[in-house]
Amino acid sequence: MGVGGGGKPSTLRVGEVDIGGSVLVLMAGPCSVESRDQILAAAAAAAASGARFLRGGARKVRTSPASFQGLGLEGYRLLHQAASAYGLLTVSEVQCQEHLEEADGLIDLLQIGARSMQNIPLLRAVGKSGKPVLLKRGLASTVDEWLAAAQYILEAGNPNVILCERGIRSFETATRFTLDVSAIPIAKKRSGLPVVVDPSHAAGKRSLVLPLALAGVAAGADGLLIEMHPNPGAALSDGPQSLTPEELLAVAAAAVPVARAVGRDFPSCERDA
Amino acid sequence: MGVGGGGKPSTLRVGEVDIGGSVLVLMAGPCSVESRDQILAAAAAAAASGARFLRGGARKVRTSPASFQGLGLEGYRLLHQAASAYGLLTVSEVQCQEHLEEADGLIDLLQIGARSMQNIPLLRAVGKSGKPVLLKRGLASTVDEWLAAAQYILEAGNPNVILCERGIRSFETATRFTLDVSAIPIAKKRSGLPVVVDPSHAAGKRSLVLPLALAGVAAGADGLLIEMHPNPGAALSDGPQSLTPEELLAVAAAAVPVARAVGRDFPSCERDA
Amino acid sequence: MGVGGGGKPSTLRVGEVDIGGSVLVLMAGPCSVESRDQILAAAAAAAASGARFLRGGARKVRTSPASFQGLGLEGYRLLHQAASAYGLLTVSEVQCQEHLEEADGLIDLLQIGARSMQNIPLLRAVGKSGKPVLLKRGLASTVDEWLAAAQYILEAGNPNVILCERGIRSFETATRFTLDVSAIPIAKKRSGLPVVVDPSHAAGKRSLVLPLALAGVAAGADGLLIEMHPNPGAALSDGPQSLTPEELLAVAAAAVPVARAVGRDFPSCERDA
Amino acid sequence: MGVGGGGKPSTLRVGEVDIGGSVLVLMAGPCSVESRDQILAAAAAAAASGARFLRGGARKVRTSPASFQGLGLEGYRLLHQAASAYGLLTVSEVQCQEHLEEADGLIDLLQIGARSMQNIPLLRAVGKSGKPVLLKRGLASTVDEWLAAAQYILEAGNPNVILCERGIRSFETATRFTLDVSAIPIAKKRSGLPVVVDPSHAAGKRSLVLPLALAGVAAGADGLLIEMHPNPGAALSDGPQSLTPEELLAVAAAAVPVARAVGRDFPSCERDA
Repeated sequence: MGVGGGGKPSTLRVGEVDIGGSVLVLMAGPCSVESRDQILAAAAAAAASGARFLRGGARKVRTSPASFQGLGLEGYRLLHQAASAYGLLTVSEVQCQEHLEEADGLIDLLQIGARSMQNIPLLRAVGKSGKPVLLKRGLASTVDEWLAAAQYILEAGNPNVILCERGIRSFETATRFTLDVSAIPIAKKRSGLPVVVDPSHAAGKRSLVLPLALAGVAAGADGLLIEMHPNPGAALSDGPQSLTPEELLAVAAAAVPVARAVGRDFPSCERDA
Repeated sequence: MGVGGGGKPSTLRVGEVDIGGSVLVLMAGPCSVESRDQILAAAAAAAASGARFLRGGARKVRTSPASFQGLGLEGYRLLHQAASAYGLLTVSEVQCQEHLEEADGLIDLLQIGARSMQNIPLLRAVGKSGKPVLLKRGLASTVDEWLAAAQYILEAGNPNVILCERGIRSFETATRFTLDVSAIPIAKKRSGLPVVVDPSHAAGKRSLVLPLALAGVAAGADGLLIEMHPNPGAALSDGPQSLTPEELLAVAAAAVPVARAVGRDFPSCERDA
Repeated sequence: MGVGGGGKPSTLRVGEVDIGGSVLVLMAGPCSVESRDQILAAAAAAAASGARFLRGGARKVRTSPASFQGLGLEGYRLLHQAASAYGLLTVSEVQCQEHLEEADGLIDLLQIGARSMQNIPLLRAVGKSGKPVLLKRGLASTVDEWLAAAQYILEAGNPNVILCERGIRSFETATRFTLDVSAIPIAKKRSGLPVVVDPSHAAGKRSLVLPLALAGVAAGADGLLIEMHPNPGAALSDGPQSLTPEELLAVAAAAVPVARAVGRDFPSCERDA
Repeated sequence: MGVGGGGKPSTLRVGEVDIGGSVLVLMAGPCSVESRDQILAAAAAAAASGARFLRGGARKVRTSPASFQGLGLEGYRLLHQAASAYGLLTVSEVQCQEHLEEADGLIDLLQIGARSMQNIPLLRAVGKSGKPVLLKRGLASTVDEWLAAAQYILEAGNPNVILCERGIRSFETATRFTLDVSAIPIAKKRSGLPVVVDPSHAAGKRSLVLPLALAGVAAGADGLLIEMHPNPGAALSDGPQSLTPEELLAVAAAAVPVARAVGRDFPSCERDA
């Protein structure tokens, strides 16, 4: 399987969840795992919105060393416990071989962050692990560079790669990053890999998450990765762009008809029930 | 009415068409008016897809003087005749006072191109004209600069401004420009003006027009401006990104359920009938 | 003479000043002509620093209509009077045919601003005028687009084109624009036209003008265009990036050894005398 | 010592070489260490041009896994042997803890590449090592993000950080990256750390290395990092932007008068002798 070959879309299976098929996937949770209570509340809210994955960072790439850096191994454990309690899978970032070992048995989908997209030793290590990988696009990486990074993982013998568009750097300052919706169909076509969209990091503010999420779905994304916090005002990181549980539910409900409008489906959530 | 005030969305009326209301508007046609036959065929195809506006350039801003520069006044006339034959309104670019005079009585919606967005004498002139204006975002303009340009028109006493997001310049080379879908909700909220999306110039290639158009609709755009040519392979400009009449019909048909999914509607076209 | 041909560097003559030869040219003055006293004081300071051109805007392209827009024709007149009193030539922006007529006999070097770089009617008009033109690079224009814009002037029969690099738009916010020093040797080589550098607009702040000016000279620029105001704190526009007369003198003095280090020369100023 | 404090410039000492003082430093060598003969020839040429550091990659960050990835530990050894034979120090990239251990005793100045600038575990590891670090600016990093990355190293107790500006990503395609000369004085002032310039990666082509190197010196850089290969046409990586030994000598000779013009000095080379 090769990125260069492009061609037919592939469906990946993580746990019992298919990614890249007719039903889109929702991954939701806080930027950082902060405490047992916080992540449990987040898991409940994610599940209630139809999410199949609980996200939460334990090893953060923060611009400044003065910012909260994450709980480390304990964060992975808390994430795993909370997800298990609600039948969810886990997705969390790893940045080096050591994190990879810590994540073993705790993290179902290994996230390579935007700032690690060209960390070659890390790409090789997750490649060798054979585990499902969520590869975020570098914030100044072309689509072709992103797919070349995926190729490092694929060539190490690991076909389980999901791409994630999360916004690129441009001159515009009204948003944190510029969500590049064009990259969704282009990356899907050139690689055959599933592509999910992270509207939260691109938006940088809560009010834009809904329209960007729907735009991503309309453009053909295979899923959404959304930051949600039980209490965004108290978040240790990325509070301004984190949805409340109610807002996440609203986004999920709004995504259903858009997904259906483009011939796909979105998981039902409590509001639908 | 002021951009700075932001606030409540306004609906503009051009001819008998409301823009910014519950029903989205479709504007379609070739990059350039090339001949009577070409523009008549384009008008027929635009009308058949539910368009209310026929677009077509007569005064082109081409990077190189060696490229086709448009038919000038004759282009405006041919556009007007073709549109009239199919009950359509016209939209075409003007670049200076002289073009504005030529366009009088022929062009219903005066387009200010991306490269003219900060042409202050032109902004003032279309402001004084009182006629409906389609103000494209400059290819390296922030949303705030775009709205400040609109303010020149509004302050000249002309409230009839429609904004058009058409992609911004970034490092990515897989597309001609990066469609900034975030700009749609931001510009609408900050200005209260309608915002339409031009997926064609951003895409730079035919195959991306559909996903970008749908993304724009999902993000809240009030309409679509799409390049379509009766015979793209023979187009004198922008052929690679121009849809065929059949492709335009497919985009329009696909936009209907997406518009409905976000609580709006899209004009019915022949396929629906 | 054609841009496409590239080739041997040409020297232009404006009044009695050669541009593109062994001696660099200094153009200095305020962003805007504000009053007779202000521009006379600026002219005295420019001359004292070795400048051969007095710059000063009378028709400004301001982002917002609420900003000072310039004195118009009266500004051109005041600029011309002040320059004449000190044996200087004038350089000032024109944005449309009307400005071109006003500038006749008053402005020696017609500046096309960055935001007008692709104003095709204007390029053709200055082309037909046959007068010396200073063509600023568009803030998101590639070097090739810049040279294609120059070609509009050249093809109208006017070989008197000087290019001006003034910074491009990037994601970096520490400066107003990113001065692209690479563009200097590239544009010179591809076009054979002289290239001057405007460090002031790129810097956006006074303290960076000196290092950027010297970098431009070291990279091969044929001159400097620098904003200087007799009293920057009272400037109606661009005060933060305007040098005082003393600072301009210091930049000019510092440019002399750098110009000599790259085999050129810089005009002597009072400090040298 | 803190980046936030800005303030007085510091001079670092690596081996017996002062960096950030009155004399600039030259670091030169091939993109990749390819063989004993190649790197010995490069060392001879670097020394002849006045270089104090021999550069050469052993662990490359290549966009594609199909590209040459470097010789690994053997590369570090060959680099060290060649440098020692000519009295030079070594600078080479490390990407993870394992490389750091391999580099021990072989590499005098640990390079953090542009794509690793926000590799937090790596920043902490080189911080703990206490060894001199050359921190390249990320290709889409603001100056403030770059200095925040430096802060990770400083806060780990390692004050021996040299910054390296190597060009940022912009829309311009005439160069590989846009050398941001403004970043030199800004980073120096805000951090007090030495800043060297890498004109080779920004240029992407041989002919631009000279003007960019001189622009960097004129803007206040404390040194130059230049790619040079004994036989660029046969280079396994970055051949098009690598200078020949003769071209390096010419750049070094040209840098001397420019350095002196800004009150510094540049090491003498054979041509001077």
